[in-house]
Amino acid sequence: MAEYDNIFFDNASTTKVDDRVYAEMEPYFRQYYGNPSSLHSFGDFASTKIEEAREKVAALINAVEEEIYFTSCGTESNNFALWGIARALKDKGNHIITSAIEHYSILNPLKEMQKEGWDVTIIPVDEFGFVNPGDIKKAITKDTVLISVMHANNEIGTIQKIKAIATVAKEAVVAFHSDGIATAGIIPVDVKELGIDAYSFSAQQLYGPKGAAALYIKKGIKIRPLLLGGTQEKGRRAGTENVPAIVGFGKACEIAQAELSDCVKNISILRDNLIKGIKESIDKVKLNGHPVMRLPGNVHISYEFVEGESILLMLNLQGIEAASGSSCASQALKSSHVLLAINLTPTMAQGSVLFSLGKYNNREQVDKVIEILPPIIERLRQMSPLFK
Amino acid sequence: MAEYDNIFFDNASTTKVDDRVYAEMEPYFRQYYGNPSSLHSFGDFASTKIEEAREKVAALINAVEEEIYFTSCGTESNNFALWGIARALKDKGNHIITSAIEHYSILNPLKEMQKEGWDVTIIPVDEFGFVNPGDIKKAITKDTVLISVMHANNEIGTIQKIKAIATVAKEAVVAFHSDGIATAGIIPVDVKELGIDAYSFSAQQLYGPKGAAALYIKKGIKIRPLLLGGTQEKGRRAGTENVPAIVGFGKACEIAQAELSDCVKNISILRDNLIKGIKESIDKVKLNGHPVMRLPGNVHISYEFVEGESILLMLNLQGIEAASGSSCASQALKSSHVLLAINLTPTMAQGSVLFSLGKYNNREQVDKVIEILPPIIERLRQMSPLFK
Repeated sequence: MAEYDNIFFDNASTTKVDDRVYAEMEPYFRQYYGNPSSLHSFGDFASTKIEEAREKVAALINAVEEEIYFTSCGTESNNFALWGIARALKDKGNHIITSAIEHYSILNPLKEMQKEGWDVTIIPVDEFGFVNPGDIKKAITKDTVLISVMHANNEIGTIQKIKAIATVAKEAVVAFHSDGIATAGIIPVDVKELGIDAYSFSAQQLYGPKGAAALYIKKGIKIRPLLLGGTQEKGRRAGTENVPAIVGFGKACEIAQAELSDCVKNISILRDNLIKGIKESIDKVKLNGHPVMRLPGNVHISYEFVEGESILLMLNLQGIEAASGSSCASQALKSSHVLLAINLTPTMAQGSVLFSLGKYNNREQVDKVIEILPPIIERLRQMSPLFK
Repeated sequence: MAEYDNIFFDNASTTKVDDRVYAEMEPYFRQYYGNPSSLHSFGDFASTKIEEAREKVAALINAVEEEIYFTSCGTESNNFALWGIARALKDKGNHIITSAIEHYSILNPLKEMQKEGWDVTIIPVDEFGFVNPGDIKKAITKDTVLISVMHANNEIGTIQKIKAIATVAKEAVVAFHSDGIATAGIIPVDVKELGIDAYSFSAQQLYGPKGAAALYIKKGIKIRPLLLGGTQEKGRRAGTENVPAIVGFGKACEIAQAELSDCVKNISILRDNLIKGIKESIDKVKLNGHPVMRLPGNVHISYEFVEGESILLMLNLQGIEAASGSSCASQALKSSHVLLAINLTPTMAQGSVLFSLGKYNNREQVDKVIEILPPIIERLRQMSPLFK
């Protein structure tokens, strides 16, 4: 399998499970496989381990464990937040505010909710991808019950002025949800200090396993369940708990918290080297997102006159795995709504590649990209009808 | 950990992951961890493996792979089926029919749907837990769009006359969903021969991992997604696929299919031995569910004058893990709705224990129960105020 040796620069999409996380999960498949809801010592043991994981997951974002609800993935957390909070507040109003650069797991449920009578306002962003808190304030009406703005954008990496937006929401007494799938475990997150009412995040983005994610819901915030059935998660999320994945999520959060400042520092240096190397060796490129307020691992660049897909293919032939924006939409082969929202031309949007760096990347790998990317771009430009 | 040596008779609740399943999953945490939606060879590889798993999962119930949608758990599959099919058909009517002994992941979403204007008819069952297909037929109105009746009951083990119910639905041109979480991989299931339009089943009940389940949707049956976001699962279930769990689910289905007839035979013999042993050594007991049309591993018995919880506790002290009905409701400490529906008195319902046998159980373990259970019951009856 060629996969063994490939260089993985798609950490925004998903991450390798940390060996220490895997070691923690492993006994729960074949030894401690009991159902946490069962009334025997096996079940009790699983249940205790889930609560220990909940503490670690809560600690990562400075929440308390009673405020953490486990789900199966980031998409479920986002869907749960929107449907759940809006339904709980539907007697108060039917208006929801969001931004133009949210992930599809926010925008698509909102489209569905519009069909069911919800009124949704989508706030545009500036050229860096920032939502202006003043625009949110102006959009609030007496019917507004929920505002949802992502903490950092998964494609262009811009970290939002989330505290300012939370303050606007708080002043208007409107619930505020933030999609933190790109941020929790990647940059420091303190939901209390930021003033967030609900926060989605996922294990697979922070070196934990696929199959576990969380929704933080601040004490006192009302929410209806999305999945109904048994009494798991205090009745707010039915379904047998994915014990190994939740245990792994707990461990991944513990590690992320302990090693966060080192990771941010190291990955930011790699990122800056990669950006610098590309800018110095290739002309007619544009770094998307904000130059400073960006995720430590995000290198999202547009290359004039070439197709991002072609770049990815050529990189892949040389053993490098990168991405063209959001993997959740990568099969759709249309211009990213995020890139159009920051006013890139469709041509520039199509000419974009995202290298998302993680803790397992190193300087040699970055140097390899800087070495092989310029001839790839040059060759593609020679073939391009757009290039003079 | 005491858990290592305990005898596990709670297979209806969840099962140990088969070693062969685990071996298949293991590389997907740290080697092939790519996101299946990503446009690189890593992603392609994961995507290919998911499609291979889909074939195996489909084959288990004689579906074709395009009819299988992966979800995170049985509860999600059931919620998806109800909300999804009902919403897709809401222009045709607002009436849904179900039975009194469904799992909470059917009954609770239906309660929620009633609040949103859906009209739900709950059909009672007879003393064995059978739904009379004639009762379903009588309940159908011009507004009926969906019938949902479980294939076999997870508590009392009764296998429903599902083909007769499917026929009634078909004659009335009403969509028919069946919850097969207790049956798929446990008894032979052929959705085409049975005439089922939608079928829920789960990996963790058939020696696969927690975190993967499926909804079979027959070609031509309309359904709306429950989770919205990316384009995964042809847009019918957004969210990054839980690759290791899905790969494991595929392997578990492949093994279940290959070994099904042996498993049914062996487990049925153990079950019959256990029932016989208990009946011969303890008086005033009642086997619940149908004596013949029952799941191979189901031994659900009520013991007069004693509390099921106390029996479980005493068994657990001697290293045996059993259950009192459904684990999803076990924390609720109220009489099972299933047992009340088959007309057990609340006292008898409270005095019930479910031993659910699986392929890792053996004759020695059954003999141990037959040895230690009679003195447990006797001691508890001596302490009981109800016992003369």
